[in-house]
Amino acid sequence: MGALLVVGSVALDSVKTPFGEVTEVLGGSATYFSTAASYFTTVRLIAVVGEDFPEAHVKFLKSRGIDLTGLERRPGQTFRWKGAYTHQLNEAQTLDTRLNVFETFRPNIPDSYRAPELLFLGNIDPELQLSVLEQVKRPSLVACDTMNFWIERKPEALWRVLEQVDVLIINDGEARALGRNPNLVQVAKEVLSRGVKHLIIKRGEYGVLMFNQKQMFGAPAFPLEAVLDPTGAGDTFAGGFMGYLSSTGNLSEESFRRAVVFGSVMASFTVEGFSLDRLRALDYKEIEARFQEFKRLTHFEDIR
Amino acid sequence: MGALLVVGSVALDSVKTPFGEVTEVLGGSATYFSTAASYFTTVRLIAVVGEDFPEAHVKFLKSRGIDLTGLERRPGQTFRWKGAYTHQLNEAQTLDTRLNVFETFRPNIPDSYRAPELLFLGNIDPELQLSVLEQVKRPSLVACDTMNFWIERKPEALWRVLEQVDVLIINDGEARALGRNPNLVQVAKEVLSRGVKHLIIKRGEYGVLMFNQKQMFGAPAFPLEAVLDPTGAGDTFAGGFMGYLSSTGNLSEESFRRAVVFGSVMASFTVEGFSLDRLRALDYKEIEARFQEFKRLTHFEDIR
Repeated sequence: MGALLVVGSVALDSVKTPFGEVTEVLGGSATYFSTAASYFTTVRLIAVVGEDFPEAHVKFLKSRGIDLTGLERRPGQTFRWKGAYTHQLNEAQTLDTRLNVFETFRPNIPDSYRAPELLFLGNIDPELQLSVLEQVKRPSLVACDTMNFWIERKPEALWRVLEQVDVLIINDGEARALGRNPNLVQVAKEVLSRGVKHLIIKRGEYGVLMFNQKQMFGAPAFPLEAVLDPTGAGDTFAGGFMGYLSSTGNLSEESFRRAVVFGSVMASFTVEGFSLDRLRALDYKEIEARFQEFKRLTHFEDIR
Repeated sequence: MGALLVVGSVALDSVKTPFGEVTEVLGGSATYFSTAASYFTTVRLIAVVGEDFPEAHVKFLKSRGIDLTGLERRPGQTFRWKGAYTHQLNEAQTLDTRLNVFETFRPNIPDSYRAPELLFLGNIDPELQLSVLEQVKRPSLVACDTMNFWIERKPEALWRVLEQVDVLIINDGEARALGRNPNLVQVAKEVLSRGVKHLIIKRGEYGVLMFNQKQMFGAPAFPLEAVLDPTGAGDTFAGGFMGYLSSTGNLSEESFRRAVVFGSVMASFTVEGFSLDRLRALDYKEIEARFQEFKRLTHFEDIR
């Protein structure tokens, strides 16, 4: 299948966890997404950075084969996020957010990007997500992310996006906010009744649930002995998921399930290091090996 | 395989959830355990109730084929527990606990119970768990439960129990308290190094993890549209788990994995009603059907 287009943020993160602290390291949803997906397919990135964005990061993204034609460099500073995690590592406490050049980001799709096979709309203003959809030929598969901020502030624009996407990938808190309901099965019914074909709910260390009109799929997260920094796990999941689907071109239920597992596998690597440290040191054989471990983790024999 | 012996509590529960409220209904860890296990095997119960324990409950337990030779009836009132759940349904808020006759409970094993094939030591004082172990011929498999109260107050007695058990079945909060560590994989290493052969960690709506020296197994909880009352889910899980192992007599890794799924299946029924309402109305065909649904929920094809 053809290329995978992603629109989202590229950032410089400062993160503190019980296991260490890093300052102004490479981060951002589109960065994690692209890097994870780059192990499976050709990724085209739409994002914006400031004049201060280190050339080494550009070089790294290029080394992963990511097409950076759509990476705008604009006057000003790159988006910065500062966060901390306590021992449970479940939820980040945001200490500081400086949108900088990301505040006025208007995705502008280069001509060479206008016919993606797959599209991932990262967590940006739903009106910008709509503008991206208007600029491209309808891809075979469109997935998107969002956050509580947009669910609360721009629900109408968001639902207009959701009517046009095939897969919504959000975390459990966002799902409950979107469906205004604590029960995820009921949330799934509601969301699927409004046009989304597949709802994927990320539950951090507890794994993932995927719903469509006919089936449910549930996978635990891969249990890890050393989780250093959960930042980017959800975006990495989405990158592994979409990357695998892009590589296989098979959009069947069975393929979606495997894609969820590849997404989970990629996320399990991301949290083993700070920033993209573990992800960038990865070998495809390690990915395959952990996929096999994941199979052993979840497999049980039927009773028949 | 032979009979399954369980020691634990029989109680009268008053429970309030966002979906309803019940007063002095049948409850208790050994009640949920026995009823769940009774769908698979012969259960022998050791517990105590007061003079006020309704005859209808005795009749129900008998109707499930549960051997009540070891159900003591003593002067005084039956153990009562009162609790409430908020919308998330994750954790009960205990409003009132009256141990009553359970406070001076000393498990006394009838002669006919002294050679069980499998033994489940419910959540009671670890010193009483030790006294039960002393009173029986060593079973093929011993499993036990505990709680933070004993982990904090009687750690030495508890570790003496754990040295003698094959399977420890606890929830994630208890596991973290026992291992004094937020990371469950590290907790598992610690617990397994001290003699327990299998550690099963229950995570409520997020499912179950099972660890032994060689393998990990992870299963999500079955996603449900209507969860009315989570009370007893963990004890039901243990009952389904031990009941299945008792019925098959196969103590292989593969059998343990299926047992975890049967435990999860049984727990998924319990939470669909208050008290044992859903569990008591169950047909074995429904159990098998949900096992199959569970297989469909978690299955994915290998990449090879």
